[in-house]
Amino acid sequence: MTADAETRDASPEVEADAEIRDDEGRLVTAFVEAVEAAISANDSQRVREIAGDLHESDVGDLIETLEAEDRPKLVELLGKDFDFAALTEVDETVRVQLLEELPPETVAEGVRELESDDAVYILEDLDEAERAKILEQIPAPERIALTRSLDYPEDSAGRRMQTEFVAAPEFWTVGHTIDYVADAEELPDTFYEIFVVDPTYKLVGSVPLDRLLRARRSKHLSEILEDDPRTIAATEDQEDAARMFERYNLVSLAVVDEAERLVGVLTVDDIVDVIEEEADEDLRALGGVTGDEEISDPVFYTARSRIPWLLVNLLTAILSASVIGLFEATIEQMVALAVLMPIVASMGGNAGTQAMTVAVRALATQDIGGRNARRLIRRETLVGLANGVVLALVIACAAGFWFQNAQLGVIIGCAMVTNLVFAGLFGILIPLTLERLKADPAVASGVFLTTVTDTVGFFSFLGLATWWFGIGK
Amino acid sequence: MTADAETRDASPEVEADAEIRDDEGRLVTAFVEAVEAAISANDSQRVREIAGDLHESDVGDLIETLEAEDRPKLVELLGKDFDFAALTEVDETVRVQLLEELPPETVAEGVRELESDDAVYILEDLDEAERAKILEQIPAPERIALTRSLDYPEDSAGRRMQTEFVAAPEFWTVGHTIDYVADAEELPDTFYEIFVVDPTYKLVGSVPLDRLLRARRSKHLSEILEDDPRTIAATEDQEDAARMFERYNLVSLAVVDEAERLVGVLTVDDIVDVIEEEADEDLRALGGVTGDEEISDPVFYTARSRIPWLLVNLLTAILSASVIGLFEATIEQMVALAVLMPIVASMGGNAGTQAMTVAVRALATQDIGGRNARRLIRRETLVGLANGVVLALVIACAAGFWFQNAQLGVIIGCAMVTNLVFAGLFGILIPLTLERLKADPAVASGVFLTTVTDTVGFFSFLGLATWWFGIGK
Repeated sequence: MTADAETRDASPEVEADAEIRDDEGRLVTAFVEAVEAAISANDSQRVREIAGDLHESDVGDLIETLEAEDRPKLVELLGKDFDFAALTEVDETVRVQLLEELPPETVAEGVRELESDDAVYILEDLDEAERAKILEQIPAPERIALTRSLDYPEDSAGRRMQTEFVAAPEFWTVGHTIDYVADAEELPDTFYEIFVVDPTYKLVGSVPLDRLLRARRSKHLSEILEDDPRTIAATEDQEDAARMFERYNLVSLAVVDEAERLVGVLTVDDIVDVIEEEADEDLRALGGVTGDEEISDPVFYTARSRIPWLLVNLLTAILSASVIGLFEATIEQMVALAVLMPIVASMGGNAGTQAMTVAVRALATQDIGGRNARRLIRRETLVGLANGVVLALVIACAAGFWFQNAQLGVIIGCAMVTNLVFAGLFGILIPLTLERLKADPAVASGVFLTTVTDTVGFFSFLGLATWWFGIGK
Repeated sequence: MTADAETRDASPEVEADAEIRDDEGRLVTAFVEAVEAAISANDSQRVREIAGDLHESDVGDLIETLEAEDRPKLVELLGKDFDFAALTEVDETVRVQLLEELPPETVAEGVRELESDDAVYILEDLDEAERAKILEQIPAPERIALTRSLDYPEDSAGRRMQTEFVAAPEFWTVGHTIDYVADAEELPDTFYEIFVVDPTYKLVGSVPLDRLLRARRSKHLSEILEDDPRTIAATEDQEDAARMFERYNLVSLAVVDEAERLVGVLTVDDIVDVIEEEADEDLRALGGVTGDEEISDPVFYTARSRIPWLLVNLLTAILSASVIGLFEATIEQMVALAVLMPIVASMGGNAGTQAMTVAVRALATQDIGGRNARRLIRRETLVGLANGVVLALVIACAAGFWFQNAQLGVIIGCAMVTNLVFAGLFGILIPLTLERLKADPAVASGVFLTTVTDTVGFFSFLGLATWWFGIGK
């Protein structure tokens, strides 16, 4: 980036077409600072110069990077150059906050420019009143289409679909279809296939654009269409749609209503976000972060969303501590036990988590069925046994030397094997059971598992010691 | 599914076009059993009847569900009806095992039918010798293309790309391009854009098919092309490619060599798998499952791949246990401490894991930059403080009542707050530091974090108690 003597103001000098991302894909600081300088100078022309031509995704990242008070200013200064699609690329917290600060007319105008799926995505998180204020600024036909999409359940295919698509009757020829597309005024911004429908708008088949281009002009669509095309009901969950995209390598998928009529289309770019979100949810749930926490959330909100899970864990921790309470007399006689017991419990937790992680993910991607469930239960138990033996040997020697007590080594070794077998078994059984009970295995498995591994760990180790040394009785 | 009196054999009666997946998306047992029956009857016609027409993805799932010895039999019985693309849909273990049992000529013939990216995907996991045997059965031009892709580093864009694409010179008109596509013999199975290249095969721009269809036939490609199209170098990591697809909502992306010449194209269906894999890797790494463990792996392999991580954890567990060892005298005086201490340690672990999970994921999706890192560190510390206070109040009351000792309640409360603040701070600092050191935060963060939260937990609680009660000195 070279300095330019003619730059109009003192802000960091950034060329309009300079690289705005570094090698790691993050926004370059000099660029962000240039935008900030232009915003505080209220220099609309300069803002448009450096940020008016960016991809919506880059604008989205820019918005997230700016301080909250600069965000609406950026939108205002960009004016007509601001593409509201950028708001589909930012965290919900940021989006809702920004939309609430903009005048409803500005939002309505911006939303009108968007494809229906993006418009719905932006409107769905707003509260009723705010949304109504914006919707009433939008002309009837568009408003009705948006409202219909918004009426579908949250996270359904109907919410994510785009209501603009290209449909043609069976009897059209390839040539006629190509000419129609060339002349049509109102077409979606991007589309990958032509849907072939009957007069009642029931889906008959689909013709991917590359197939259309490869066919003779004189052929009828009925001759080249993919019949029995895959469809999804508008009320189905977006995750089911994501599974279909992944499984059948789709780029778009027809959405139909109860009467099997074509009402919209899901495109792969939205589905990529769904897949990412879904994997994220599993990962967060396993890490004890439930709900839709985002990194731009403030302290209070974050703390409040995390505390319920911590309280549940506190309860189970007290439960397993009470197992230790049963052996107070033994511990009093032999404090080494208190030193060693957390090792047995925590190794059980670690091994169980390994088994659980694999199971949770396999369930999420529908890789576990009735047939391999039994094989997996057997495998995890045996893996627990095998690794339990290895760990037992190590800890037995370590503990034996540490406390100069070979018997203590044998006891902790036995407890370790026991706990690891339980860990493997419950690491797989808990998620399987939760799935069967229609609960989300990712959310709850961890709590149950630690309770098992802590309790079994403490009980087997302290119990064995009590029995062996005949003390505490 | 109705019984059919004419069914030729005693196998479970399955119609050729019956539903093969249940509502959960899993293969129907009756279907799998029908296939198994046909395989053991060596009935090639029946196998082709019920499984010959399936989507490659369904065949892939079927292969995984079958017992290992039935898999090569299925491929042989399906004969020409077996689409080797199905092998891109199965676990690596299953794929490698199956390929090793099939004659190299069969594999070579099957691989030749595939798009280059699928062929490479199937060949890349085989060992050198096996791969050479298959490659030598493939005619030179195709073999050379495959070898070139295989020469790119593992998990690079060059490995994942398809070398078949449609390219055209700038001066072609839309009409000429459409006619060319209609007449061309050798085209990729599917494509979404026409790449516009100069005579040296440098990429000038791209024309998405929908844009081509919408343009007047007389226009030149140079007039409608998207100039400055996004590209990725063949040697770059597939994860960088995935980021670009997500960020810019792409369906395909041009891959270029060092000289900026177009060498291939990445398509979104492959990238969906990369995104899924990547999220999976993070999730597994956080769960202590490193490497590429798959649910079809046998016991020994699974146990061996999991043990290193357990041994590392055992070491850190011994380390934190040695902290307890420092306070043996105190514990001897007051066994209640031994009962309560795991609670402080484990709550720190839970809270730290929450912070860490958010940080690891945000780093993976490049949502943390220098600018918000400081804000996040501050936020996590404050969240730790806030939730620490809440948990402290609960556990203080619980412990106070349990042991009828208010001072013990105060002490555990103070220890809890201390540990939670450390947990929040290190929960974010550890992943950030590992990322800066170019280590994978998902893999190593957990071990470091538990070491911190266990050590701080035991030390603060036992240390405070020792100081307060003035015992054990």
